[in-house]
Amino acid sequence: MKKIIATYLPILMVSPFLFLNSCTDSTKAPVKNAEQDSDQKDLQKVVYPSDVIPFFNYWNLILGDGSNVGPAIDFEQKDFFYTAKDDKTNWVVFKTPNAGNTHGSSNNTRTELAQLKKWSPMIEDKLTATLKVKNVSATGDARVAASYSVVVGQIHSADGHENEPLKIFYKKFPGHTKGSVFWHYEINTAGDDNSGRWDYSYAVWGNDFSVVGATPESYPPEPKEGIALGEEFSYEIHVKDGIMNLTFTSPGHDTRTFSKNLIKSEYTTRADIPEQTKKLFFPIGQDGVERPNAYADEGLFFKLGCYNQTNGKSPEVNRNWCSGAETHGGNIQKQYADGNYAEVWFKKGDILISKDAISNEGYFKLNDHYDKNKK
Amino acid sequence: MKKIIATYLPILMVSPFLFLNSCTDSTKAPVKNAEQDSDQKDLQKVVYPSDVIPFFNYWNLILGDGSNVGPAIDFEQKDFFYTAKDDKTNWVVFKTPNAGNTHGSSNNTRTELAQLKKWSPMIEDKLTATLKVKNVSATGDARVAASYSVVVGQIHSADGHENEPLKIFYKKFPGHTKGSVFWHYEINTAGDDNSGRWDYSYAVWGNDFSVVGATPESYPPEPKEGIALGEEFSYEIHVKDGIMNLTFTSPGHDTRTFSKNLIKSEYTTRADIPEQTKKLFFPIGQDGVERPNAYADEGLFFKLGCYNQTNGKSPEVNRNWCSGAETHGGNIQKQYADGNYAEVWFKKGDILISKDAISNEGYFKLNDHYDKNKK
Repeated sequence: MKKIIATYLPILMVSPFLFLNSCTDSTKAPVKNAEQDSDQKDLQKVVYPSDVIPFFNYWNLILGDGSNVGPAIDFEQKDFFYTAKDDKTNWVVFKTPNAGNTHGSSNNTRTELAQLKKWSPMIEDKLTATLKVKNVSATGDARVAASYSVVVGQIHSADGHENEPLKIFYKKFPGHTKGSVFWHYEINTAGDDNSGRWDYSYAVWGNDFSVVGATPESYPPEPKEGIALGEEFSYEIHVKDGIMNLTFTSPGHDTRTFSKNLIKSEYTTRADIPEQTKKLFFPIGQDGVERPNAYADEGLFFKLGCYNQTNGKSPEVNRNWCSGAETHGGNIQKQYADGNYAEVWFKKGDILISKDAISNEGYFKLNDHYDKNKK
Repeated sequence: MKKIIATYLPILMVSPFLFLNSCTDSTKAPVKNAEQDSDQKDLQKVVYPSDVIPFFNYWNLILGDGSNVGPAIDFEQKDFFYTAKDDKTNWVVFKTPNAGNTHGSSNNTRTELAQLKKWSPMIEDKLTATLKVKNVSATGDARVAASYSVVVGQIHSADGHENEPLKIFYKKFPGHTKGSVFWHYEINTAGDDNSGRWDYSYAVWGNDFSVVGATPESYPPEPKEGIALGEEFSYEIHVKDGIMNLTFTSPGHDTRTFSKNLIKSEYTTRADIPEQTKKLFFPIGQDGVERPNAYADEGLFFKLGCYNQTNGKSPEVNRNWCSGAETHGGNIQKQYADGNYAEVWFKKGDILISKDAISNEGYFKLNDHYDKNKK
């Protein structure tokens, strides 16, 4: 086995996006927030997210309006990405409405970091984060598994179908105090047609994705061992030698660990498909199988932030992923006013990147609405 | 895919063991308990386990002294197997000390049912049970993962290495109120040498097997979402088309579901082996890989009861499985007097057996101390 010497990237990357931003007609410093800068009563220095968590140079930041702002150094944007203080702790706030412009082919809005490098699952990479979810959508069809949920961390493939071997969810039904944390493995669908793809959902605390309401507005029982809004938890994602190891911790809750092979599929034949999938995805024709070597041939990268899973599309489009939630025609402030948004606060984050990781530029080229040549 | 018509076995099996038992010089009815029968003050009919759960005709009963008593119809044995009433509910009690005679090649004593039939993982079989654990061993080396634990349900292979694709554990450290429920998958070791075998442990409520004490008498933190002694929980084991689906429920706890392929290995190369295994089993040289088709070629059968995982062997023999617990030289009453035993109460059990299941006699022939020809 090849010996891997993993290392923290030593160089602060300076993104061309930062300079391009200065071509706008703003008279302010290019990436600072105008409102804060002009507030003369408050002479305190603005606390930028990059002051709270010093790792934004490893990521592009995608905002809830679909834009890619590049690495978020000394940057904030009051609708989507800023800091907040809670007792003595500074947090980085990621916020996004139920509807807005989206990124790539997704139906869902996000304020989310996407790693600048990608790496083979055979080499070692690691992401840790400590967060609390402050809000999930107030509306949505309770029968739709994605309703009232937000993804707070991912491994995404940059290649092939661009599927996701890991999504970490938080979900809380309206009226409940406690919500659930669960994580998903999406199959890397065999063949060129990705329409048969499906996720398998593993409960961490509370229930998995498949526990839904019987009617659009009736909810299953509240999870007993769930996590409340505002309650801290941490995840560690450690990929090495093709195995993804996950550790979830939270004060007052039991630690949960999981291990999943990313380079050898469990689901290469129809007979391998679990009952959960038959229940959730077979009725909508998503009954694909996975390529035998799963994600072995693809470049993977981390995402972290607030990827809202509740959207305004009709459940008739996809009864697992389309929530039919309130979007006020895409008006962000109206959605924020009545709870139709997701909001996640992070206080810590660390990323370990193998020296063998390579540029992820191809992914951004394919998926960004951001146009580098726009003046 | 072959269509399987699963059916509850309609015929009450009459075991030859019952009649052989009558060859002893007891003057009482062959399988009734002598003490109860002679107690003239109590004219109430004895409530046998088979009156509480009407499914003992599908199993042999192995007792804590290593004996196979056959199907336990109208049978009780006050040391190991009897009924108890709790408020309005009758329960079947399975009890076994830390040391006694064991069954087959195991180090551990058990009072446990072993299914009379075996079946391919490709056909449909199902076991459900509702139970509470009343006691686990009071002593044992806290560094040993098996200490203070009991297995309450299993799938066992009757063939090959006779390994165990499923063991459902309850474990509680001394002084803790809450214990953990976890389940294990044991690899079906590739090749003829089974010495490299290992278990992978999945937490259900509380912690998994790998959470141990730092010293022989220091304990990890009490699980926050664990199950107390005397607290009811249920399991459902459903095998179909090569997939094992598990559902765990308990009032006041979140339902947990798992899915595991029994006919296609996740662990065919050394690189596939998860971190948990490297931590627990590599240090003792148990670093085997699994045959690619896992348990596909073997006959499997259920076990249910009280399979004590705490024994008196030195941790130097095996630091995961040998507890160094108190055994009072094998004296059962002394072990019962100071808590060195495991005790599990069941109130419900159901078994669904495919019509294609076949006799499991070969397994019992190999593993029984019970001698059919003894007069």
